[in-house]
Amino acid sequence: MNMLYEGKAKRIFETEKEDQVIVYYKDDATAFNGEKKGTIEDKGIMNNEITSIIFRYLADHGIPTHYIRTISEREQLVKRVSIIPLEVIVRNVAAGSFSKRLGVPEGQSLQTTIFEICYKNDDYGDPLINDTHAVALGLSTFDELKEIYALTEKINHLLKDFFLKLGLILVDFKLEFGKDKDGNILLADEISPDTCRLWDEKTNEKMDKDRFRRNLDNVKGAYSEVISRMKQGES
Amino acid sequence: MNMLYEGKAKRIFETEKEDQVIVYYKDDATAFNGEKKGTIEDKGIMNNEITSIIFRYLADHGIPTHYIRTISEREQLVKRVSIIPLEVIVRNVAAGSFSKRLGVPEGQSLQTTIFEICYKNDDYGDPLINDTHAVALGLSTFDELKEIYALTEKINHLLKDFFLKLGLILVDFKLEFGKDKDGNILLADEISPDTCRLWDEKTNEKMDKDRFRRNLDNVKGAYSEVISRMKQGES
Repeated sequence: MNMLYEGKAKRIFETEKEDQVIVYYKDDATAFNGEKKGTIEDKGIMNNEITSIIFRYLADHGIPTHYIRTISEREQLVKRVSIIPLEVIVRNVAAGSFSKRLGVPEGQSLQTTIFEICYKNDDYGDPLINDTHAVALGLSTFDELKEIYALTEKINHLLKDFFLKLGLILVDFKLEFGKDKDGNILLADEISPDTCRLWDEKTNEKMDKDRFRRNLDNVKGAYSEVISRMKQGES
Repeated sequence: MNMLYEGKAKRIFETEKEDQVIVYYKDDATAFNGEKKGTIEDKGIMNNEITSIIFRYLADHGIPTHYIRTISEREQLVKRVSIIPLEVIVRNVAAGSFSKRLGVPEGQSLQTTIFEICYKNDDYGDPLINDTHAVALGLSTFDELKEIYALTEKINHLLKDFFLKLGLILVDFKLEFGKDKDGNILLADEISPDTCRLWDEKTNEKMDKDRFRRNLDNVKGAYSEVISRMKQGES
């Protein structure tokens, strides 16, 4: 199969159908805009599984997504979309770059849910932007942003609920959206411990890629614990 | 008189009236979050004069401001406000930090006017934030932000028009707002070549603090040319 694109954690391949592609999940892990590189054993398998479960859950609750079906341990069949070059970030609790940039201690609860957009552009370090920047740069229209924020807010409610039932606090997460050939906005990319901060509700232990970013032990174990709770939740 | 506050370019003094203060304009100039320091001869006199003319013009066109009257070469009497810790920035043309952060050439026109807010906090380098950050940090409410953006948009229209009549393009500018004791939002701080980028309409020559930031010659001459055009405009 012809590879269309290789990203930091995934490869995208063509299929016979023009409007469908295959996503292949790699074990490669990067952090700090690619400055830190490594691999997490079986991460591709785990993130494919986690993302598949979450995208089916979101679709069942009315969120339009690119997901069609999981076709192997590391592969998903998805609708072909053109990715809107924005990282849409939701923060329910202070952590990460938000805490660092603004001096707010990690773990502090927030007076309102934070929604951020960053310009997906490695050369400029995926900088934080606002709606007027996005429109001025031609990345999206104001109407598209309105739709993206409405979907994101709904997804946040669904995911907070989903993870809390598994004893996990959804601290923050990143979404990406794409447009299909008819211009419909669909949730794309992945939702996994690579793209979410998940803290154990009782111990506050980090169950996500921060274990890799911050050189903590048992990175694979954390991902695997998330899957195991999700499977218990499903059964 | 008791000094209440000393900033980079101004000092604030008490008066006998509790709800009025005096702003004293200094010649000190700083750039890059205080990293570059210097003085521009008579800048305080010129910025006091420029700000006074502009604030009277804005008040005449329905903008609520803190300005009462100019009382000396370097001093204005203004209403006492508590400053909302936001820098509100409007960009009509790409320049400065916007160009640098996002790789957009200076001088490029924009598909939409850009409105930015930055958190006034020297320790963190006055970082760019968005509305949800401002509310989460307790800096303002969503309603206050709505009012601030509406005023800012109106001010942009008035100022673009004002400067264009003087042969100057208003590239971008920074505003600050304050609240009086009744909670009314008033335009505060200053509007001058310290806080605006102004380019000569014909030659594109910089007529603002970028001459100081970028070590260009004739800094004082540029400020003085702006005043001279404003006085011709008034007469």
